Amino acid sequence: MLSEEQAAVVPGDHVFDQAIAFRPAGAGLLTGASHPAYANMVGPYGGIIAAIMLNAVLCQENLLGEPVSLTVNYAAPIADGDYTLQVRTVRTNRSTQHWAVELVQDHGVAVFATVLTAIRRDTWEASDVTFPQVPAADQVAPFPTQGRAPWAACYDMRFMSGGPDALNGDATVPEIRVWVRDQPPRPLDFPALAAICDAFFPMIYARKQKRVPIGTVSLTTYFHANAAELQQTGTRHVLGVARSHRYGKGFFDQSGLFWSPDGVLLASTHQVIYFKA
Amino acid sequence: MLSEEQAAVVPGDHVFDQAIAFRPAGAGLLTGASHPAYANMVGPYGGIIAAIMLNAVLCQENLLGEPVSLTVNYAAPIADGDYTLQVRTVRTNRSTQHWAVELVQDHGVAVFATVLTAIRRDTWEASDVTFPQVPAADQVAPFPTQGRAPWAACYDMRFMSGGPDALNGDATVPEIRVWVRDQPPRPLDFPALAAICDAFFPMIYARKQKRVPIGTVSLTTYFHANAAELQQTGTRHVLGVARSHRYGKGFFDQSGLFWSPDGVLLASTHQVIYFKA
Repeated sequence: MLSEEQAAVVPGDHVFDQAIAFRPAGAGLLTGASHPAYANMVGPYGGIIAAIMLNAVLCQENLLGEPVSLTVNYAAPIADGDYTLQVRTVRTNRSTQHWAVELVQDHGVAVFATVLTAIRRDTWEASDVTFPQVPAADQVAPFPTQGRAPWAACYDMRFMSGGPDALNGDATVPEIRVWVRDQPPRPLDFPALAAICDAFFPMIYARKQKRVPIGTVSLTTYFHANAAELQQTGTRHVLGVARSHRYGKGFFDQSGLFWSPDGVLLASTHQVIYFKA
Repeated sequence: MLSEEQAAVVPGDHVFDQAIAFRPAGAGLLTGASHPAYANMVGPYGGIIAAIMLNAVLCQENLLGEPVSLTVNYAAPIADGDYTLQVRTVRTNRSTQHWAVELVQDHGVAVFATVLTAIRRDTWEASDVTFPQVPAADQVAPFPTQGRAPWAACYDMRFMSGGPDALNGDATVPEIRVWVRDQPPRPLDFPALAAICDAFFPMIYARKQKRVPIGTVSLTTYFHANAAELQQTGTRHVLGVARSHRYGKGFFDQSGLFWSPDGVLLASTHQVIYFKA
């Protein structure tokens, strides 16, 4: 039986499905190509890369369960064009499975990732964080993506704080708050959520009050939701809230939470980012 | 020239140095053995495993810079006895270097990790979090480690909230606050800090008001400090503060910060933990 997330690997009409699609190329090998719609300043948008790495696991025949944890290491820019994905099952336990994925081009390994999937059973449920009091997505102005890198137009983003607009005079912004969904709308699934988890603009733009050279070097996302909870979100916006902890010696970190509009915590996400300033 | 952290791989008199020591076993191969002092309920304490994985990188001759990011995936329990570490340089850039490490025993890969090291240069510095107002370490009672798993006795832990003592009647504890240092005292370095980043007790013990079966499945630590800042901490306690976000479907996450007693943010650390309840 194809699970919800496996169905997503079949390239559909949506540009996101095209961007994360690939074709089999031998045992544990897949080939794909960078999609211009998700281009960033140098190479593809980090979020689409995260989705590709996760999708490479989710389409495997021996997949056990749903994603729990994803770590993506951005080792070098992906050049425009084709790439090969090498997918390896590191360990299969009774209810958990560990994966390693490498994205390789002629110049070597550009990206490598580790993924944990698990059969998730109903257990005790609780949350230690509360859904923030924010206006509904339709009460917030969409962020204008003209003049931005192409990937930004693949999202409908509605910043309440911490967006690039904060460049105009608020160097103390401690928190990013943004409603975000795919543009055009697309039902939420694990690859889409993995991509959205990188859809914050780097906090340092607001803190420094200017654009500085940056690049995510490692990103980790923990998925709290199962496929059913993602399905319930459908094509609606999800709420992202993020903070940084420390900037210095060429790197800073950024940690975020993503909520469904119904107040369900879908994922927590963390990254460490190179900067020059 | 041996860097500060390289010096630490030479087994010293301290039990921590013995526990993370290994000997060369061919190109990219090291062998080590589990140390009884850091035993947990099943296999070694996760923090000592993190230190071992990091140390395997820090002792490499072609090492570039200092650790920035460490992700450890706990795929299976480590059996008592010998293990082999396979260390691979995935990519070397001008100022960053990406690593993959696997800890292998007869039963297969037990643990695998990814590490980013970088030459860290002075840049703009800032912090978006403030050092918590807490009593000094010597004003807080040490946590009694008798009757606990052996590893607990390798630390001097002083809980202000969220410790296993919270099992007595506070099921709402939202935050762990603890002063911690190696026992006996040992100057802080990167492997020691990597190990300490796992020295929170799992929040679910307090939330459920009982011990439940748990196990960390993936741990990510971002190092904000450089070797000089760790040296300044010396043998003093570091302050750990941690929270969880969501518990459900067999897993919960926990995110923490570790501060020097001088108020310098040394690391942020995140993990996702299996539980049965």
